[in-house]
Amino acid sequence: MHAALPMAFPPVPEQMALLTRGAVDLHVKTELEERLEQSRKTGKPLVVKAGFDPTRPDLHIGHAVLLAKMRQFQDLGHHAILLVGEFTAMVGDPTGKSDARPRLSRQEVQASAKTYTEQAFKILDRHKTEIRSNSEWLDTMTPADVVELMAKMTVSRMLERKDFAARFEDGRPIYQHEFLYPLLQGYDSVALCNDIELGGTDQLFNLLVGRDLMSKYGKRPQMVLTTPLLEGIDAKMENGGVVGKKMSKSADNFIGLTEAPLAMFRKVMQIDDEVIFRYFELLSNKSNTEINELKTEKAAGRDPREIKAIFGRELVTLFHDETAAIAAEAEFKNVYSASAVPDNVPSFSLTTDGPTLWIAKALSLARLVKSTGEGKRLVEQGGVEVDRERVTDGQFQLERGKRYLLRVGSKNRRFAYIEIAR
Amino acid sequence: MHAALPMAFPPVPEQMALLTRGAVDLHVKTELEERLEQSRKTGKPLVVKAGFDPTRPDLHIGHAVLLAKMRQFQDLGHHAILLVGEFTAMVGDPTGKSDARPRLSRQEVQASAKTYTEQAFKILDRHKTEIRSNSEWLDTMTPADVVELMAKMTVSRMLERKDFAARFEDGRPIYQHEFLYPLLQGYDSVALCNDIELGGTDQLFNLLVGRDLMSKYGKRPQMVLTTPLLEGIDAKMENGGVVGKKMSKSADNFIGLTEAPLAMFRKVMQIDDEVIFRYFELLSNKSNTEINELKTEKAAGRDPREIKAIFGRELVTLFHDETAAIAAEAEFKNVYSASAVPDNVPSFSLTTDGPTLWIAKALSLARLVKSTGEGKRLVEQGGVEVDRERVTDGQFQLERGKRYLLRVGSKNRRFAYIEIAR
Repeated sequence: MHAALPMAFPPVPEQMALLTRGAVDLHVKTELEERLEQSRKTGKPLVVKAGFDPTRPDLHIGHAVLLAKMRQFQDLGHHAILLVGEFTAMVGDPTGKSDARPRLSRQEVQASAKTYTEQAFKILDRHKTEIRSNSEWLDTMTPADVVELMAKMTVSRMLERKDFAARFEDGRPIYQHEFLYPLLQGYDSVALCNDIELGGTDQLFNLLVGRDLMSKYGKRPQMVLTTPLLEGIDAKMENGGVVGKKMSKSADNFIGLTEAPLAMFRKVMQIDDEVIFRYFELLSNKSNTEINELKTEKAAGRDPREIKAIFGRELVTLFHDETAAIAAEAEFKNVYSASAVPDNVPSFSLTTDGPTLWIAKALSLARLVKSTGEGKRLVEQGGVEVDRERVTDGQFQLERGKRYLLRVGSKNRRFAYIEIAR
Repeated sequence: MHAALPMAFPPVPEQMALLTRGAVDLHVKTELEERLEQSRKTGKPLVVKAGFDPTRPDLHIGHAVLLAKMRQFQDLGHHAILLVGEFTAMVGDPTGKSDARPRLSRQEVQASAKTYTEQAFKILDRHKTEIRSNSEWLDTMTPADVVELMAKMTVSRMLERKDFAARFEDGRPIYQHEFLYPLLQGYDSVALCNDIELGGTDQLFNLLVGRDLMSKYGKRPQMVLTTPLLEGIDAKMENGGVVGKKMSKSADNFIGLTEAPLAMFRKVMQIDDEVIFRYFELLSNKSNTEINELKTEKAAGRDPREIKAIFGRELVTLFHDETAAIAAEAEFKNVYSASAVPDNVPSFSLTTDGPTLWIAKALSLARLVKSTGEGKRLVEQGGVEVDRERVTDGQFQLERGKRYLLRVGSKNRRFAYIEIAR
């Protein structure tokens, strides 16, 4: 599948500058320089591998960081392999204790892989991407092969992995097959003979196991490059650093790759005014110089919403197109900016016996609706926002000791600040 | 292969008395009673399994302890399975670090298994013994089956095994496949659905893994019975206990099952006068009462050589026949007892520059031979004994600081004490 045509690869320093940008770990820099040099001489592209777990096919822009790195390799003329973890997905976690490893049928795996790759091709060059499945070699392994694989690694080495070490020390169980999975994943590289593997920083241990195994099987060991895990849209800046959970579906702080243009744009506008630069650095095609210029402008007083809109447009353009990006921004301004809070918003201080106050009750007490019944219906019909976020749970509770901005109705908007007294 | 005829099994207490005699661990006594009771009711024999490693097919009487226990089950009407560890022998130890697990070809395994079973049938009832190989089920396992197997056991549980725990604490490597082997061995029981597994006390952990696995695979868990590891013929009594290395080929303190009658008898006569009762208890068919009578007689002054000769005859009868036993005893008395050291043995004190003195030189200096050349030839022809043991190595060295009894010639025996001065 490798392109046989001699290619004009850019000079090594130029390639290195791009490939190492935003990377966290690189094992080993000098090796990468050598192999890039060799690739230029021979005209043979490097083979870049990244694996994915088909039990979680829904991608968000956190995944896009890794895929964007892979795309950079492609744009430089290198060859990308997306490896589907089909074998592990089909085996699942036999203890049944991990949600992350449900047991999928081959059909399910294939459907998942299709979903995944269709999303990934929003970033990757479809025509320069080879899709492989580890079932190709793992399904046909004999038990003797498994024994041989396991003999390549000691128990102590495996216990160096942080999560294993912590569980071992706490006396929480580690099932033995969990030790096997990093080896199987590493064996994928033995089978593929790739030059380099990419992964998130949380994959560093496993990627290095692959590197070790390759040399133990007499293959040229892969290099390893990790990209950062993107924090969610709810992250904040603290002491000059980004603080917050990683972007994930479960933390509900993600921007999905397949989200509609307006939703994407709106979520970008929710990002913290400083954290947005982290997103620029990890996901934007802008040069470091351009990003630094934006930082300077912000420091000089430019409205941070303008800067976030720049990123929002770029993101929507990437995953949809430019027309959609322009439309999304216009619609956002119309719907959300037009709903800017007027100056004369009334304030209500309400009291409650319990720790919380029912939203319908609060709306009624603030005279925003005529009755708790009407309040509940309005909430459930989507006509109420709390702190600029739509709330549709009719039983939503406001917490004592907090102050909220409520908005009622979508055409004739009415605002009120509501403080729940202690 | 199970006998389908209803059998008349002896009453449970009678069976229990025999089966638990000399056993160390029994998991679990009440279960064994229940299953024996059930077997009496249904007329269905219990299935008793013991595994063996075909990489070490030479049996000594230490192995006979286990086989004798198995034979007791057979004599009571139960069904025995000798399991050949063919799969593990063929895989070997891929790290190449263990002599115990060389990699054998299927032909070698089969030859070894034949050697083993032919020896084992000196004790077991050939017609009531089923030979199985774990290749039957392990060769066809898929990698997914291996993952499932590994998921049944935690890393911590495996580290409870004493030798693993010690190595882990000392920082000596444990390769991951070593964790797999107890699981594969346990899986043999899952495949065979045996009622009980026998093994040496050093196998207790592995046997219990088998018990656990069976219940995790929804099988009725096996019971586990261990027999003691017999100490070598060089063991001594200390503080009322037997002290010494286990019998093994490598420690050269063994009586092989295939040794000639005279060698067998002679080795028995070398055993310590007290330790011989350990041999009686583990290997003799004598009742506890009979053994206690012998102890009383010895305490009353009976010549311990007579008591050892009783065991020697029984052992030779077991592995050869009664005629051979009688002949061996007679020959022993003729050769060895007749060769009792005379009273007037001369003593020589020789000196040497190095740490040792060449035996041919010593013989020559003591005038037992005319030249070192003759001495060397005599040694190599088997005409020389050192401390009552024949020495045939022409380069044999006597150590400085020790005193030896040498004997030269077989017809005209000449004795000399030789002391190598410091």
